[in-house]
Amino acid sequence: MNKIEHIGIAVKDLELSCGLYEKLLGAPAYKRELVASEGVSAAFFKTGDNKIELLAAITGDSAIADFIRNKGEGVHHIAFDVTDIYAEMERLRNNGFVLLSSEPKAGADHKLICFLHPKGTNGVLIELCQEINEGQEIRTESNG
Amino acid sequence: MNKIEHIGIAVKDLELSCGLYEKLLGAPAYKRELVASEGVSAAFFKTGDNKIELLAAITGDSAIADFIRNKGEGVHHIAFDVTDIYAEMERLRNNGFVLLSSEPKAGADHKLICFLHPKGTNGVLIELCQEINEGQEIRTESNG
Repeated sequence: MNKIEHIGIAVKDLELSCGLYEKLLGAPAYKRELVASEGVSAAFFKTGDNKIELLAAITGDSAIADFIRNKGEGVHHIAFDVTDIYAEMERLRNNGFVLLSSEPKAGADHKLICFLHPKGTNGVLIELCQEINEGQEIRTESNG
Repeated sequence: MNKIEHIGIAVKDLELSCGLYEKLLGAPAYKRELVASEGVSAAFFKTGDNKIELLAAITGDSAIADFIRNKGEGVHHIAFDVTDIYAEMERLRNNGFVLLSSEPKAGADHKLICFLHPKGTNGVLIELCQEINEGQEIRTESNG
């Protein structure tokens, strides 16, 4: 766990919220990304050494749509940067944390990601994320 | 808005959660603080350039007790470090944000703090916090 990489915030209207966070943080989103596999459109803001990631659902069955239906807009997850996601998953599993996938998945922003079950972390959805290294051999849930 | 200073997480049992976050982050809490005026006991963890602040209610009428009754455990607020809290409050007010107090309040960890209304920030409770400078003349809600 090197540091907080980003905080993910679930929003209903990405354009409206981008305007709002631009005013709040004093600078516009530096990147947009559509993560079709997750049914999500994302906008990224820099703040100090961290990012704020605004997440809006683009399909009714995306995790963000579910979250907003159940809890309303708000903080969806906290992501921690790790150097070796496989080693960190193993360490956390050995410490009793429950992982939501047995292997990392490919996430937004050129990362390998894995979530911890929020029941084991005081209701906070925690994501591990590792920058994909050039030439790294990747073992994910989807490719075995 | 210089950077994320800390993320505040509402927990039911501070001892239990301290053990859990120690395992998660790989290091124990570096400080404990009782904020009697807020009915809260807090534990602080370092992660990169940021802090995680675990908050447990010590009275039934504290804001943390209310939060847990309504929403359960989870992320309570995101705090941003600012250089001049009075100037930042003025800037945000002029940009249409609603502040929860007209002057800063004395918070934990030797800070002046002010919250923004979460209805104006996509359901996220945002705190501004400024380190109290030595010899700084302080104008707060409680002293005028």
